[in-house]
Amino acid sequence: MQKIELPRKAVYRLSVYQRCLQRLRENDVETVSSEALAKAAGVKPTQLRKDLGYVGQFGTRGLGYNVETLAEAITAALGSTRLQPVILVGVGNLGSALLRYSGFRKEGFEVIASFDRYPIKDRVKGTGVPLHPAEEMEDYIASHAVKMAILAVPATEAQTVANQLVRAGVQAILNFSPTVLDVPENVYVNNVDLAIELESLSYFIR
Amino acid sequence: MQKIELPRKAVYRLSVYQRCLQRLRENDVETVSSEALAKAAGVKPTQLRKDLGYVGQFGTRGLGYNVETLAEAITAALGSTRLQPVILVGVGNLGSALLRYSGFRKEGFEVIASFDRYPIKDRVKGTGVPLHPAEEMEDYIASHAVKMAILAVPATEAQTVANQLVRAGVQAILNFSPTVLDVPENVYVNNVDLAIELESLSYFIR
Repeated sequence: MQKIELPRKAVYRLSVYQRCLQRLRENDVETVSSEALAKAAGVKPTQLRKDLGYVGQFGTRGLGYNVETLAEAITAALGSTRLQPVILVGVGNLGSALLRYSGFRKEGFEVIASFDRYPIKDRVKGTGVPLHPAEEMEDYIASHAVKMAILAVPATEAQTVANQLVRAGVQAILNFSPTVLDVPENVYVNNVDLAIELESLSYFIR
Repeated sequence: MQKIELPRKAVYRLSVYQRCLQRLRENDVETVSSEALAKAAGVKPTQLRKDLGYVGQFGTRGLGYNVETLAEAITAALGSTRLQPVILVGVGNLGSALLRYSGFRKEGFEVIASFDRYPIKDRVKGTGVPLHPAEEMEDYIASHAVKMAILAVPATEAQTVANQLVRAGVQAILNFSPTVLDVPENVYVNNVDLAIELESLSYFIR
């Protein structure tokens, strides 16, 4: 099936709606108004309606959306993310922590291998994820057709490692290194900078 | 000093610029063009120039910005974030990992205490951060004038805990629980949903 071309931010919000719908289904809720769903997702109702228009769902005034149908329409538009293999590069404190984070697997992502310049086996103990030396990374990516990577190396090494990832065939990087990566246009990067999240919050404290 | 009223997203981007300038200073770079700084921060030059206008810095055509002066102007506008005390609630896998993440302290945030319904001391071993039972949280916030909290409890408990935080005086929450929090208007929340970050990336993989 041909994918619908969606704006980047709409993709992100559709993932959030999907998450909310999932929770509604778990609670056996069958229909939801655009106002309620927008509130749960933290967006304006007009934004929600626009985004749902992308996936061909327009709701019925007074009736709201059928939770099941809407969830299926979003899944069809986003494509299945089930069992997408991911590698993690940089098994320091944060990387080691991310390997223990159960949220990824819950959402259908499996971290199938991790890499570090100095592979210390203790750091992956109990995670079930194998740890390999960094020099094996490119071959591994190619031979396992890995398309996604989580990057948690120090900022000074992030660009070099990103170049290797891209060269080997990675198309999407979740970047935890506090630096902005320079990648080709067809590679997608989401940045998560935890310190900046806190810093930008602290401004609003009276 | 009266704080300038800045839009939320501008605050976030100013923090990113500050981070880039910091790196330039470490490398003894004295001036930077708006194009180079914009690229390093991952924004468009027009956006950068607009944001720097908020802090009264307009650069000089052909000369660029003085790194030192610009960094000081941003610090003055954002206010010092040094030694802002933070608590962490929910010491599961992710919470325990966040306590070991050195990036917060590096940026001037000190996690002074952690809380969990079932305080298992092993989870904070080696972090130097004390762990208290959840029922002591509200008193602690009030007596230590804590204004910021990192929330890493399960989604089902996040709203209840957020209500307690707000009631006790917390004004800013960095939320790692995969749920949207309903808080009063004067409370600021930044959401970090790691699974959604991955999920929204996976759409772009061919």
